[in-house]
Amino acid sequence: MDAKIPVGILGATGTVGQKFIRLLDNHPWFRVKELAASERSAGKPYEEAAAWKQAAPVPDAVRRLDLRPCTPDLGCRIVFSGLDSTVAGPIEESFAAAGYVVLSNSKNHRLDLDVPLIIPEVNAEHLGLIPLQKRNRGWRGCIVTNSNCSTMFLAMVLGPLHAAFTVEEVMVVTMQAISGAGYPGVPSLDILGNVIPYIDGEEEKMEVETRKILGRFDGGKVNLAGFRVSAQCNRVAVEDGHTESVSLKFARKAPVEEIAEALRAFSGLPQRLRLPSAPEHPILVTSAPDRPQPRFDVGLAGGMAAVVGRIRPCPVLDVKFTLLGHNTIRGAAGASILNAELLKAQGYLE
Amino acid sequence: MDAKIPVGILGATGTVGQKFIRLLDNHPWFRVKELAASERSAGKPYEEAAAWKQAAPVPDAVRRLDLRPCTPDLGCRIVFSGLDSTVAGPIEESFAAAGYVVLSNSKNHRLDLDVPLIIPEVNAEHLGLIPLQKRNRGWRGCIVTNSNCSTMFLAMVLGPLHAAFTVEEVMVVTMQAISGAGYPGVPSLDILGNVIPYIDGEEEKMEVETRKILGRFDGGKVNLAGFRVSAQCNRVAVEDGHTESVSLKFARKAPVEEIAEALRAFSGLPQRLRLPSAPEHPILVTSAPDRPQPRFDVGLAGGMAAVVGRIRPCPVLDVKFTLLGHNTIRGAAGASILNAELLKAQGYLE
Amino acid sequence: MDAKIPVGILGATGTVGQKFIRLLDNHPWFRVKELAASERSAGKPYEEAAAWKQAAPVPDAVRRLDLRPCTPDLGCRIVFSGLDSTVAGPIEESFAAAGYVVLSNSKNHRLDLDVPLIIPEVNAEHLGLIPLQKRNRGWRGCIVTNSNCSTMFLAMVLGPLHAAFTVEEVMVVTMQAISGAGYPGVPSLDILGNVIPYIDGEEEKMEVETRKILGRFDGGKVNLAGFRVSAQCNRVAVEDGHTESVSLKFARKAPVEEIAEALRAFSGLPQRLRLPSAPEHPILVTSAPDRPQPRFDVGLAGGMAAVVGRIRPCPVLDVKFTLLGHNTIRGAAGASILNAELLKAQGYLE
Amino acid sequence: MDAKIPVGILGATGTVGQKFIRLLDNHPWFRVKELAASERSAGKPYEEAAAWKQAAPVPDAVRRLDLRPCTPDLGCRIVFSGLDSTVAGPIEESFAAAGYVVLSNSKNHRLDLDVPLIIPEVNAEHLGLIPLQKRNRGWRGCIVTNSNCSTMFLAMVLGPLHAAFTVEEVMVVTMQAISGAGYPGVPSLDILGNVIPYIDGEEEKMEVETRKILGRFDGGKVNLAGFRVSAQCNRVAVEDGHTESVSLKFARKAPVEEIAEALRAFSGLPQRLRLPSAPEHPILVTSAPDRPQPRFDVGLAGGMAAVVGRIRPCPVLDVKFTLLGHNTIRGAAGASILNAELLKAQGYLE
Repeated sequence: MDAKIPVGILGATGTVGQKFIRLLDNHPWFRVKELAASERSAGKPYEEAAAWKQAAPVPDAVRRLDLRPCTPDLGCRIVFSGLDSTVAGPIEESFAAAGYVVLSNSKNHRLDLDVPLIIPEVNAEHLGLIPLQKRNRGWRGCIVTNSNCSTMFLAMVLGPLHAAFTVEEVMVVTMQAISGAGYPGVPSLDILGNVIPYIDGEEEKMEVETRKILGRFDGGKVNLAGFRVSAQCNRVAVEDGHTESVSLKFARKAPVEEIAEALRAFSGLPQRLRLPSAPEHPILVTSAPDRPQPRFDVGLAGGMAAVVGRIRPCPVLDVKFTLLGHNTIRGAAGASILNAELLKAQGYLE
Repeated sequence: MDAKIPVGILGATGTVGQKFIRLLDNHPWFRVKELAASERSAGKPYEEAAAWKQAAPVPDAVRRLDLRPCTPDLGCRIVFSGLDSTVAGPIEESFAAAGYVVLSNSKNHRLDLDVPLIIPEVNAEHLGLIPLQKRNRGWRGCIVTNSNCSTMFLAMVLGPLHAAFTVEEVMVVTMQAISGAGYPGVPSLDILGNVIPYIDGEEEKMEVETRKILGRFDGGKVNLAGFRVSAQCNRVAVEDGHTESVSLKFARKAPVEEIAEALRAFSGLPQRLRLPSAPEHPILVTSAPDRPQPRFDVGLAGGMAAVVGRIRPCPVLDVKFTLLGHNTIRGAAGASILNAELLKAQGYLE
Repeated sequence: MDAKIPVGILGATGTVGQKFIRLLDNHPWFRVKELAASERSAGKPYEEAAAWKQAAPVPDAVRRLDLRPCTPDLGCRIVFSGLDSTVAGPIEESFAAAGYVVLSNSKNHRLDLDVPLIIPEVNAEHLGLIPLQKRNRGWRGCIVTNSNCSTMFLAMVLGPLHAAFTVEEVMVVTMQAISGAGYPGVPSLDILGNVIPYIDGEEEKMEVETRKILGRFDGGKVNLAGFRVSAQCNRVAVEDGHTESVSLKFARKAPVEEIAEALRAFSGLPQRLRLPSAPEHPILVTSAPDRPQPRFDVGLAGGMAAVVGRIRPCPVLDVKFTLLGHNTIRGAAGASILNAELLKAQGYLE
Repeated sequence: MDAKIPVGILGATGTVGQKFIRLLDNHPWFRVKELAASERSAGKPYEEAAAWKQAAPVPDAVRRLDLRPCTPDLGCRIVFSGLDSTVAGPIEESFAAAGYVVLSNSKNHRLDLDVPLIIPEVNAEHLGLIPLQKRNRGWRGCIVTNSNCSTMFLAMVLGPLHAAFTVEEVMVVTMQAISGAGYPGVPSLDILGNVIPYIDGEEEKMEVETRKILGRFDGGKVNLAGFRVSAQCNRVAVEDGHTESVSLKFARKAPVEEIAEALRAFSGLPQRLRLPSAPEHPILVTSAPDRPQPRFDVGLAGGMAAVVGRIRPCPVLDVKFTLLGHNTIRGAAGASILNAELLKAQGYLE
């Protein structure tokens, strides 16, 4: 009667786990059936164990669900992982080995040669790694990852630009929201009225993940894109929304308006397949002189789009602009869900 | 008996004017004798007219001083100008014409060919423009300017680096404090929990002023430095302190440690002359992985130094680092005062 | 075909005016037909003249509407006034004299003896002042006011408590959001990391308006409620949502649970009449130990409810609790709209 | 040669411990000789073990000091305790038993009948409990406590007011700084743009500690003051400085100006004894209409005074006002140091 696909959430009490629950509430294809967390929480009803920090209340459907431990005996075949990277590695592997399709937010497997790192609008063909992964590892299931939150929006805009103009150099400076660090995350004494010019491991992630996502899949492996990326990552006192100041150099020079048009016109497989979580336009371009801003623009398109503004020539590289995205929606849980929708639409869940 | 040089402050009630008053309190060489402001405030005692926003109370020496209008009949020969750029142009000119030495914070004359734009540690020799300026304009006095607040710290670090390695390309993204916009300045509804990726005219100032400051004075004019600068300016919810993410390309390649050493070792004329407001080291280099931060580091060296951290290779240009400076001290009033001290030490006030 | 009642908004470009536009978008009974603002803006399309600060974009229905001056020649009979109190007095009077029903947010007429100050759940019978007002002033229209934003939530909770227990003393300390001061409003330099223990005129408003709202209408006038109110008003760095720490003394003593139940059970005319903007429960009571909080609770019931938590005995008076409400929705524009709905439901608009 | 008294700090790496180190740097009477912390940190040099969060750098005198465990074998006779209350109880007792004079910030022993809870200006005579404490417990040393941070400022102003007018009722609502919760303390996701109307145990502390401090010592015990106190405690996004909205009822009625004068004129034993950390005036009274404010006033008198403003009649009780104090200086470490100075001046350290 309920034709929805049952899914589980690993790390359900954490920040990303909570966002999974909120975004999957009333999802047309998926139904949250299993919630798993650390041994410490296992056995407790969800509402009791989670320090719920979302603006909307805990959905009724999961409020009373008892938490399970993160062992591969859940009553579903698909699991979304919001696990912390300190524990995600072996747990996600154990699920994949046992036949689960694991949609992972964690960094642990993103750079594995046989694990796809997917943005459905940009590199859906990298799913071709899945059969290799299963064969290599002797797994019945698989792991599909999405990128780091700040990488996501950069890679999304590089998608159409690399295709049209061939990106050669990327300079990006981020101003990242506190929600990106989870909960309790950043102490208020560290960030109130302050900027922290350092986020552990973040620059390295942006510099490599971007090149994997934009890389070419040759049937056997992903060849990293040839451009160079330099990232500088800062934390600012913003609740949600990573802002990025980006400069790019292209092989093929083009006027600013042509670049803006390439972003505006961009559309991909999720849009053609009408995936439930796909934004109508993955990239929104604003012409207001002082936008995008987290306060006003982070919720556009339900937090699933990248918002670009202030596109203008760069005196050093070719073009520069400001980029904004919702770090816990498209930058995390929403990305995994869109990946799962893509997997289903392409028959990977059968 | 009081051997101190009497000085005046134009725009004394504004944010920069207040900072002049605070920094000149107990100055060993200068004594604030005249305070001037708009016609509307003229005639009122300072304490009554100014919406004082400094942490320390109004110094007793100026509390009861009656505000004068901004006309060149003040009882002093040196004036510090914190005037808004909408009115600074003609007022500053009228003072210079009447024989005053005008130390200006305003943008109006910074790029005039015969007006020096000075950072004493970097380009003291540009003061050679003063005789030309007087001759050109038939003035008995002169105007000496200091740079835009965000330009200041960038140009300070470029000083030793351009000298040693020849800068070719400069990429800078700023995260600027609200105090940079004066008072009332940025509405709280615009900036609380937000980033504003736009500051009117700021990027253009950084891209040009930097090249003038680092330019070579050939006896007749300043030849702009040959490097290219690309600036992206953002406002963040920080009270004091502009943070800048900088990447540089050099003609002469050098290891990171040599670059750090060039910054650490930097010293200039103010240090040799032991000017009262000169920091012992104009550039402080921190090795902490997550510094500098506005909250902890903006007050180092009395707010007169540039603080540099996270010096590391840049995958696109050559080196990148984080830069911090106190925007209303070394980035504004303190810079003018140091310029005045240089003028005195070099005999320009006689 | 469009059976909706056309309405106008006075002060349409301001903070409250913008909120009127947002809340009236798709209203089932009212349609925004006229937007009026200062002479300076009159003639311009709304989108161009307004510095729009709402999270959702300008509704299409009003985007291109040309602004009118605030003169009583608008094509509607009902006007919502978000005018600043410096100009609201005579403008609102001119509209009422000309036959308009004026729903006013401004303080100017709230305390006039013949002007109703209405919270529909609490004192709908004060609308009986309208015929007197028309007669007194020879007006064809009338003015109906809603309270100051911080008064609103206090008076809402006093409604059922005064009825059940007879309030004798009220102590209230507020922590008010920056949006309560309009735009540009509070300078960021004043409030970032700060508390301002003063809001001009606010304490006086709370101390008197509360007593008028809770007063008894005897057919000819409103007799102020007999309790005493002491208010202390503070501004804090919160975007939306006034938090209030309240202590009350009653004539009839009652256990805390009975007081909580009186709040929970409260319902009024808007709920019985099913007015479109009426919250199902005007007062929400939370049992969480650390709630209500602006971040999580200000949007409950669409911002139209008062949220109460931490109800507990007071060692000095009888009971104390924390109170929260959305200052620009139920505390301003939403209140006027609910008043207009009440007027319509009770035949005052015919 | 160094005649200074050697002292130790328990919990030296924590927030209060760091403040002890900063305030004792260059203290005229005391010299920090021993730093103690948890077993985990013991053995490490201080600079390495502490996540230093003060604006000034770690003083040279302690930078290289090796951390000791919190066992009573330190080379000093006086210890300042910034220990967390979860561990402070038995550790402080073990030091007192072993002959140390323990100056404690922790709540554990404040309400013990034989432990003095001291504000030197208010109740220095409570030190008379020390001989009883030693006798009762068979200790060679003793414990002397200072109050909770928010209690401190309230009790300071009640000092002169209770003496002059006999306080009967106290209503206080606090807006407390994040530094009061230590480090990491309040997560930024909880407090940015928010108010938290709850601080665990804080209201109870204020309601009882105030009455002990203002109580009368009869030679054998302290009789709690007879007034009633009702406290409501809120956390706000302020770095340092607790703001309190206070209302008081007196047995003897007095005009507002007389009350203000009693506060202004207040002076106590620390002032007469010229203790090094004593502020010239323990209570500062401001007449500005919108002060005190944390941003501008928290540093007055080195953070050792209570600042009072907006003194005005209260329609419910008798008088109301705003109160501000530096929670980690006079509200914590500075209070302990002043207590130690009092002990020395009165011969308790011999």
